[in-house]
Amino acid sequence: MHIAILTFDGYNELDSFVALGILNRIKQPDWRVTLCCPSAEVTSMNGVTVRAQPTLEQAHAADAVIVGSGLKTREVVNDPELMARLRLDPTRQLIAAQCSGTWVLAKLGLLDLVPACTDLTSKPWVQEAGVEVLNQPFYARGNIATAGGCLASPYLAAWIIARTQGTEAAAAALHYVAPVGEKEAYVANALKQITPYLPA
Amino acid sequence: MHIAILTFDGYNELDSFVALGILNRIKQPDWRVTLCCPSAEVTSMNGVTVRAQPTLEQAHAADAVIVGSGLKTREVVNDPELMARLRLDPTRQLIAAQCSGTWVLAKLGLLDLVPACTDLTSKPWVQEAGVEVLNQPFYARGNIATAGGCLASPYLAAWIIARTQGTEAAAAALHYVAPVGEKEAYVANALKQITPYLPA
Repeated sequence: MHIAILTFDGYNELDSFVALGILNRIKQPDWRVTLCCPSAEVTSMNGVTVRAQPTLEQAHAADAVIVGSGLKTREVVNDPELMARLRLDPTRQLIAAQCSGTWVLAKLGLLDLVPACTDLTSKPWVQEAGVEVLNQPFYARGNIATAGGCLASPYLAAWIIARTQGTEAAAAALHYVAPVGEKEAYVANALKQITPYLPA
Repeated sequence: MHIAILTFDGYNELDSFVALGILNRIKQPDWRVTLCCPSAEVTSMNGVTVRAQPTLEQAHAADAVIVGSGLKTREVVNDPELMARLRLDPTRQLIAAQCSGTWVLAKLGLLDLVPACTDLTSKPWVQEAGVEVLNQPFYARGNIATAGGCLASPYLAAWIIARTQGTEAAAAALHYVAPVGEKEAYVANALKQITPYLPA
């Protein structure tokens, strides 16, 4: 199981790393979570330079993909060459987008007739791309999920874990990262957000 | 205002980057948030390599310091040379520690007679260092704050903002990162955690 977190120049640290940390709570030999970037290194909106793991192209072969968010998503969606490198396929991949990552999915035509979540700043751009934006932190239909607000990224990670490893594994991963003294309430609320969108 | 986030090899991504992202919501020319590392690059517990910004030594001159957490804190606290590079001074710096970062403060003697928060894994080590561990996500006394559970790191960041820029600025930064549809409840709970420990 390879989960690729697409991380572009100008990326938002929370949107890439919170999901990465939570997904890595699954300890299985074939479970691999990577930052997929368009170049060998990318620098965040706040100046944090990270080294890419696989290239963007390898996301095509991943079992799940999270499209991260950032300050330069406008440049991503307006770069036809870069967009052409994102060959995502919801018929065989779980596809999740965080905040302005939802705009990328919209521009790729993956949200046609599917409502979505995004952050307040990206909302008008996603709407302009013809997608209905929901006033909630998480939504999924079939193999496509979206989240809005940096700290909704645990819900995206939990959805991927629940879809592939079951709800108990998702709850355990959330429990580990939740604040001490608030763990039960945090897990219960997170599961309340994602459970309605899991297959029966 | 320089806030240094001490980030060691084997670091936990959430514990360094969530605080970094939230602290960077303050947009002022003299406001600077950096990853301070013992070497030019460090690699996280999950294989994410980041480039250090200032060196560890520069944390000595910072106005606030967050001691991050990670898989190799045992090696940090058992490395006298590395520990000697951490010249933290709560009489002139705000000092905050996340999860196993609390163990570093304990070993530096900064938590003598001060109870503290940490994660469930680090708890026995912090107790062994003679510090009372609280079953709550956040605690501060004077210029020293500690938090337990990765997702308690917004509370540490909010405490630093509240102490230097006021509670309204802290609330605004938290509001930005909170999940869509849960923003008011999230901010209210976070402020409830930190307000009792702010100067009257």
